Amino acid sequence: MENGVQKWRFKGNESITTASGITVRGVLNMLMENLNPDDEKQILALGHGDPSHFPSFRTSPLAVDAVVDALRSFRFNCYGSTVGILPARKAVAEYLSRDLPYKLSEDDVFLTLGCTQAIEVALSALSRPGANILLPTPGFPYYEARCAYIDLEARHFDLLPEKGWEVNLDAVEALADENTVAMVIINPGNPCGSVYSYEHLQKVAETARKLGILVIADEVYDHLTFGSNPFVPMGVFGSLIPVITLGSISKRWIVPGWRIGWLVTNDTQGILQQSGVVESVKGFLNISSDPATFIQGAVPHILDMTQEDFFSKIIDVLRRDADICYEKLKQIPCISCPHKPEGSMFVMVKLNLSLLDDILDDLDFCIKLAKEEKTIILPGMAVGLKNWLRITFALEPLALDEGLERLKAFCQRHEPKSIGNGW
Amino acid sequence: MENGVQKWRFKGNESITTASGITVRGVLNMLMENLNPDDEKQILALGHGDPSHFPSFRTSPLAVDAVVDALRSFRFNCYGSTVGILPARKAVAEYLSRDLPYKLSEDDVFLTLGCTQAIEVALSALSRPGANILLPTPGFPYYEARCAYIDLEARHFDLLPEKGWEVNLDAVEALADENTVAMVIINPGNPCGSVYSYEHLQKVAETARKLGILVIADEVYDHLTFGSNPFVPMGVFGSLIPVITLGSISKRWIVPGWRIGWLVTNDTQGILQQSGVVESVKGFLNISSDPATFIQGAVPHILDMTQEDFFSKIIDVLRRDADICYEKLKQIPCISCPHKPEGSMFVMVKLNLSLLDDILDDLDFCIKLAKEEKTIILPGMAVGLKNWLRITFALEPLALDEGLERLKAFCQRHEPKSIGNGW
Ligand SMILES: Cc1ncc(COP(=O)(O)O)c(C=O)c1O
Ligand SMILES: Cc1ncc(COP(=O)(O)O)c(C=O)c1O
Repeated sequence: MENGVQKWRFKGNESITTASGITVRGVLNMLMENLNPDDEKQILALGHGDPSHFPSFRTSPLAVDAVVDALRSFRFNCYGSTVGILPARKAVAEYLSRDLPYKLSEDDVFLTLGCTQAIEVALSALSRPGANILLPTPGFPYYEARCAYIDLEARHFDLLPEKGWEVNLDAVEALADENTVAMVIINPGNPCGSVYSYEHLQKVAETARKLGILVIADEVYDHLTFGSNPFVPMGVFGSLIPVITLGSISKRWIVPGWRIGWLVTNDTQGILQQSGVVESVKGFLNISSDPATFIQGAVPHILDMTQEDFFSKIIDVLRRDADICYEKLKQIPCISCPHKPEGSMFVMVKLNLSLLDDILDDLDFCIKLAKEEKTIILPGMAVGLKNWLRITFALEPLALDEGLERLKAFCQRHEPKSIGNGW
Repeated sequence: MENGVQKWRFKGNESITTASGITVRGVLNMLMENLNPDDEKQILALGHGDPSHFPSFRTSPLAVDAVVDALRSFRFNCYGSTVGILPARKAVAEYLSRDLPYKLSEDDVFLTLGCTQAIEVALSALSRPGANILLPTPGFPYYEARCAYIDLEARHFDLLPEKGWEVNLDAVEALADENTVAMVIINPGNPCGSVYSYEHLQKVAETARKLGILVIADEVYDHLTFGSNPFVPMGVFGSLIPVITLGSISKRWIVPGWRIGWLVTNDTQGILQQSGVVESVKGFLNISSDPATFIQGAVPHILDMTQEDFFSKIIDVLRRDADICYEKLKQIPCISCPHKPEGSMFVMVKLNLSLLDDILDDLDFCIKLAKEEKTIILPGMAVGLKNWLRITFALEPLALDEGLERLKAFCQRHEPKSIGNGW
């Protein structure tokens, strides 16, 4: 008590506020608050990577049945084990080994709460006082948020739009020093829709080897490719350098709400074991929450039994969506798209502000778009590129078309009066 | 490269290894490694709080159906929201309000990955450089593990076995200083099986108010009581002091593998809001993984519709188990039980080492018990009390009986030869 007023000794943790200020979820929530409630139009969300509620992106009934069976078996109501239950880890090892020149074992696999927790685990296991990590720009800001929270210094290399968003490896070399522990690549790419060739990944591996750092390969969009480059997992270079692969069933099976993912060590030489990284991964999981046990119980069936048919239908819709998106965007003068998306669910496009009146920047653009058109697009600043936009094209094709029409109408309405002669 | 040998710049994070060294899960895993593989007896696990695989503790079919329905609706394959989906938060608010003198709102409720993540969130939201928190001894070592990881100083007050394991409030007052932010109580108690009276909780509240700290009430065993004290939630004092209540469906519904819990602010004066704690909780959840969305989707049905009948059957088994346990333990001279359990699934008993030959301490006792009797009991050191044992009695009554017989036989075999005249 002080002057009769109760004094409390606790307060909020400010470092959390700083760290959580920069997530996609945060920016999207803010945009949602700008929607006009009196507008009766349907909200069109071209902002986030979750098409699960569209009929064309409905998950496989087989996956649903697998979870129901696991649940009804009553064998999976118990706590799981620290690293994930054995059958599920085995299944992930086999699933990923299909695309590798060697076989992973269950000991390489750690189950996580989606790729999100896999990122948390990887960064936490590698962090130490003074360490830094190399992240791509544009990128996935959850990496930055986590780095901020655990005090791992994030340094940024650029991706090259004119080269299909490949990693600028010169920038990587220039950034690295003796405190650099890893570099992150996201392939297929969020936010760029890029898919890296074998040759480019090899160069990434060689650079990492030269620098003595490991590669964290975020492959949450694995196999979601529909251009000329097939998906190549970074793990194919696991004998040259240690690779930590992060993934989940969220995207390929379109079940982001199920929260099952993995952190996998691709490391034929056992370097991650020797250096204590594996022990830190286990230790971190030991003080963390696990994915629901019965969902883990369904993983073997889901990974083994899902038919090619299901995957190819999804790829067909994504390819069609990417085409629609690319063609429509060409019709909007203030927007340019340096690289047609070939994978994931996103494309990065550049805003030409000189062709827009009364728009300050990308954020202002997206806020006004939300207000006026009930359409959500992610401002580039949220992924590290100011005055760009990240557009999600994984929607029902009709909804995508409508969203892009609204975007076009919005741009038209905001073009400078002087040159506003109707395009 | 150095002398032709590749040099790597990363290594494991040692602070994780330190923090994760002290979990119940870790100690139990170690004990499991000491089982004799040639012994054909069934393993009897009296070590951990997960009776879900016993027929008497099977969860309600209604809960299973609720999850199946949510999953089959295809409405919950999407990402959830940062704080949990609204219908689930409303349902938790209503469920907890039943036992409170005021109504909680959905804004007081944050869904978490079981009570485990709720603990992580609460501690992280309150931590700041130099802060300390008061924890019970014996306690639940996940608190210590998390404190170690986030650098929140843990200070320990004792629970008083001769007073039904009530909090030693003098110790609390002696420990607190201007950097103390909170105290933790676990009620019903793990590891002690205690259930606090209204009067004792009121004293806890008054002490916290005097000290200007908040109370974190871990009520993961809420309503699992079978003695004379009914369960009283700490939140009834939410107008006197801010209370953060942590809970889950893991224990009452016996589904620890489902990973649904909550952090709830009981704070009629809005102090947690004003002090920024609520914002930190939200921020932390914003950079954390969520419970599976379809399990969240099932929460309203589970909380609203589960019949009293299901709960009372579980309580009956627990009461019977507690009786068996208490009576059997009386027959073992080297073990004494200061307080008959009245809640949760555990009892703390004291070892009298002078009545045992060749047993160094509680850990040695438990390792040898695992080896010789294929029976797992948690050494007291894992919960902060050396030379005590924590026994889980939530088993199928027959299995419990068998486990305690093995314990008795083990103690008999290890009694000092001099006094070994057959009891
Ligand atoms: C690049 C990237 N990594 C990780 C994640 C998180 O994936 P999950 O839903 O499996 O947690 C996402 C989700 O959008 C992502 O885009
Ligand atoms: C006191 C206490 N708190 C929290 C937990 C974690 O509960 P949950 O399974 O809901 O994460 C437990 C589990 O045993 C516990 O005993």
